[in-house]
Amino acid sequence: MKIVKVCILGAGTLGSRVALQAALSGYQVSVYDIKQEALDSSVKVMQKILRQLIKLNQIQDQSALEIVHKITFTLDPLEAVYDADIINESVLEDIDTKEKVWKLFGSLAPEKTLFTTNTSYLLPSLFAEISGRPEKFCAFHFHDVFYSKIVDIMPHPGTDPKMIPMLEDFGKSLHQVPVLVKKENPGYIFNSMLMAFIGAAGRLLTSEVASIEDIDKSWMVNFNMPMGPFGILDNVGLDTAWHVTRKMPDRSSQAFAGLLKQYIDKGKLGEKSGEGFYKYPNPAFREINFIR
Amino acid sequence: MKIVKVCILGAGTLGSRVALQAALSGYQVSVYDIKQEALDSSVKVMQKILRQLIKLNQIQDQSALEIVHKITFTLDPLEAVYDADIINESVLEDIDTKEKVWKLFGSLAPEKTLFTTNTSYLLPSLFAEISGRPEKFCAFHFHDVFYSKIVDIMPHPGTDPKMIPMLEDFGKSLHQVPVLVKKENPGYIFNSMLMAFIGAAGRLLTSEVASIEDIDKSWMVNFNMPMGPFGILDNVGLDTAWHVTRKMPDRSSQAFAGLLKQYIDKGKLGEKSGEGFYKYPNPAFREINFIR
Repeated sequence: MKIVKVCILGAGTLGSRVALQAALSGYQVSVYDIKQEALDSSVKVMQKILRQLIKLNQIQDQSALEIVHKITFTLDPLEAVYDADIINESVLEDIDTKEKVWKLFGSLAPEKTLFTTNTSYLLPSLFAEISGRPEKFCAFHFHDVFYSKIVDIMPHPGTDPKMIPMLEDFGKSLHQVPVLVKKENPGYIFNSMLMAFIGAAGRLLTSEVASIEDIDKSWMVNFNMPMGPFGILDNVGLDTAWHVTRKMPDRSSQAFAGLLKQYIDKGKLGEKSGEGFYKYPNPAFREINFIR
Repeated sequence: MKIVKVCILGAGTLGSRVALQAALSGYQVSVYDIKQEALDSSVKVMQKILRQLIKLNQIQDQSALEIVHKITFTLDPLEAVYDADIINESVLEDIDTKEKVWKLFGSLAPEKTLFTTNTSYLLPSLFAEISGRPEKFCAFHFHDVFYSKIVDIMPHPGTDPKMIPMLEDFGKSLHQVPVLVKKENPGYIFNSMLMAFIGAAGRLLTSEVASIEDIDKSWMVNFNMPMGPFGILDNVGLDTAWHVTRKMPDRSSQAFAGLLKQYIDKGKLGEKSGEGFYKYPNPAFREINFIR
């Protein structure tokens, strides 16, 4: 089966990025959302990314800006899914919303259409049955598309194994590195490791072993990285980190969730609110003397 | 108090590197070991590092090669510690050995000498009393000296707080980034985070969620790093990782320790034995197509 048309459900940040990469990779693309504002905003997000890619010399051809006009943006589910070979769903990370969407598109999509979800922490088995075609249902999870070019392929127990090499090829054609999550695992591969190391950083802080700055310095210098765990948390958003951390039952995760909540209650959500563990736009860890 | 003379105990890899950096930074340096072969080997290690640093343009002056001749290498404890302002101990990571060394040097060192240990996982409070001067005893832990320029300062409860700013200044003078470990913590700061993320990687592997390669790819691509957890383990040594992991009581650490033991029993210790999770000298993760 050859993929020609890609249907993106949800015109948020990630959906817009996947749609844009699909269009740049030569696919026909439709983007569906329930709000016209979301579609309008998606166009702007794509144009902004294109300008960045041109500036970074990742795109040489100025006419690439025109690519956005080839994408169909629509509020009409039937138009969106018409003749689609694959759906990639990036709607709100909420079980009820995703159930509704998959019930609707399960009834409307052509028989050939493969169903994939971009869910961050929910599992594909939650939606496979309601979509009406569990054997064609799989998680296909992008990270950032243009910077972190990993795509997780995570089948549920009922996914047809033939779907996996197809998604691997499709992922590569989108200039991603496909990785296989052989069993359903919340957080796929990377987030499991990320949360473990962030949790250890939280434990060092809440048990007063070291300061935010010294923990970040240790990570940055040893791994030659531009930020440490608390810089990363500011980037991810303290609210997002809290949602994940508070569900972990162990005492040190609970202590760290409590600390995150104190920041959140003060409106310190990280980079997006102007302050988290550091103050933005010029956080201390980016200063030249931080690790000198 | 001004530090002029630095006494290094133990002429192994780390001791040699600390001694060399101290000499390059303008200090008088003595290196003590119980074996002449260790001292001879230390000279060669230092010359090799110097040639690398010159090649990497981190040292411009060819005469730097002469610096090794200014270092005193000795089997005589009294000569080693004569007039020393500070000792940094890097002998075998073994309680009995370190106790013996600290008992000896505690009785021989001038009254002014500060005592520091470079122990990796043991705690300074284990040796502070036996040294005879607990208030002048502190962990001062280097990582790699020339590449990972972090030095952990970890006092035990009896360390004189005045020692901390002195060690901070001394660390900076050695071109390191000093970080303070406010409470004794095995693994200081970085190793606590490293072992947490390595443990998560081990859990993903032993529970058959993903392959060695896909776990490493996820880390390398998302963090733009030259190796992932299993590449790092090959570099650290599977035997070293096993010694740490097997002491952790939780079930997933035990499962991972069991897997590491299987590799070790086959002689696969990592890069140093020619094979670990990858085969050397050309491991798959360094191939250009690994993350393409």
